[in-house]
Amino acid sequence: MPSPKEIVNVMMASDYFSQWLGIEVLDITEGNCRLKMQIKKDMLNGFGIAHGGIAYSFADSALAFASNSYGQKAVSIETSISHLVSLVENDVILAEVVQQSNSHKIAIYTIDIIHAITLKKVALFKGTVYKTDKNW
Amino acid sequence: MPSPKEIVNVMMASDYFSQWLGIEVLDITEGNCRLKMQIKKDMLNGFGIAHGGIAYSFADSALAFASNSYGQKAVSIETSISHLVSLVENDVILAEVVQQSNSHKIAIYTIDIIHAITLKKVALFKGTVYKTDKNW
Amino acid sequence: MPSPKEIVNVMMASDYFSQWLGIEVLDITEGNCRLKMQIKKDMLNGFGIAHGGIAYSFADSALAFASNSYGQKAVSIETSISHLVSLVENDVILAEVVQQSNSHKIAIYTIDIIHAITLKKVALFKGTVYKTDKNW
Amino acid sequence: MPSPKEIVNVMMASDYFSQWLGIEVLDITEGNCRLKMQIKKDMLNGFGIAHGGIAYSFADSALAFASNSYGQKAVSIETSISHLVSLVENDVILAEVVQQSNSHKIAIYTIDIIHAITLKKVALFKGTVYKTDKNW
Repeated sequence: MPSPKEIVNVMMASDYFSQWLGIEVLDITEGNCRLKMQIKKDMLNGFGIAHGGIAYSFADSALAFASNSYGQKAVSIETSISHLVSLVENDVILAEVVQQSNSHKIAIYTIDIIHAITLKKVALFKGTVYKTDKNW
Repeated sequence: MPSPKEIVNVMMASDYFSQWLGIEVLDITEGNCRLKMQIKKDMLNGFGIAHGGIAYSFADSALAFASNSYGQKAVSIETSISHLVSLVENDVILAEVVQQSNSHKIAIYTIDIIHAITLKKVALFKGTVYKTDKNW
Repeated sequence: MPSPKEIVNVMMASDYFSQWLGIEVLDITEGNCRLKMQIKKDMLNGFGIAHGGIAYSFADSALAFASNSYGQKAVSIETSISHLVSLVENDVILAEVVQQSNSHKIAIYTIDIIHAITLKKVALFKGTVYKTDKNW
Repeated sequence: MPSPKEIVNVMMASDYFSQWLGIEVLDITEGNCRLKMQIKKDMLNGFGIAHGGIAYSFADSALAFASNSYGQKAVSIETSISHLVSLVENDVILAEVVQQSNSHKIAIYTIDIIHAITLKKVALFKGTVYKTDKNW
């Protein structure tokens, strides 16, 4: 079985959207990861702040990396996000993952999106994944 | 008060992320809109399918347009999405909005993401917005 | 394999909480059911309206009956509910189930809670279940 | 303005459903509370475990007490719960509240339901409330 680092490298190599977002993988271990990215102009919405889809996408990438890190392919089935604080251009955010459960076929993760400077929680994400029978 | 169409035009003019996504507004009325977009290579994830953040972002733009269409600025506070069917490059999707409630300060919308050819539901989105005291 | 009606009868026989709620099964077919119940004094909260847990519990029973009706035991993993309209003592409510997806191991249902007289939507519920390897 | 303890006493006095559940308020401060309850036979479902509505209702009471503790009446608008571990008759559970945000009109809380003996997380609850203009 490949290591968490090898798996995330393979995933990132063809994860064109995470590449577009500029996501950096700071750390990856079994069931966990730490990610970083910066808000750029193309991520803003009509209010001049980061589109809600940006924090969601960042968290969803963290969910994918953490939940696939064991080598078993896992797919997201249900996710939710609460937006707490607005983000503006050049803000840097971190994703902090907590694995809440990990049974045979289902795992649940909560992911806090944190502003890298103020350390305020920007968004609260929860994701449920289904662990398929396929391996990386 | 500007019309729904005028508001969405103003929003889209500086909504760089919806522009990047290639979102087309097919129709916009008070509390509703119909959107269309096409999956492109930069939207794919490590599984070779559209990143979960793409359907979410598309639905979140629909939420923003529908809930701001009355002229009162509204911001998303809580959203969830269930991913039902994978999307691949070149697939075209539609957003269909239903306003579920609309009180003084809070409104709730459900948004189905539909595959434009098969008409299958691709994702189910629900969003709760807070209506601020500011107008467009 | 027992019929949907036989399964729900077995479930209800030891579902003491659904019995306490006074849930009536109006109809049960594969992947669907229609339920009815009445708000009683013991269901009220400190605001003099039905506790949020009442509409949730009613919807969660509908989720259990609909998702177990095929004969394969299914358990709820993630659920959400939006409360739209308050309920008072003696109000009668209905649960209307829509199966949104039904794959090998995962199924997703949305359930509208409807006021039986005004026909207004009282609450919007979404539930994701995991289909186990055990049968009824 | 009444104290958090006075408010929760007034709420509990007519919260017949929380009384039926046997909820005990261990502690109540501004924006927080600690609750305890025991699973009884009338709370079981057709699987012989606690009905999903029980953990939800317990968490929803915690949300109500914590969010109303400032003296301003607050109502739940959107909630979700993930069920991690089954509960059986006589199990004792605790509710642990974290206030995630608290703005002028909206507040968001996460509530972990904990098994009092094993200290395992039984369920993860998130609730968004709207703060009305009325006071207790």
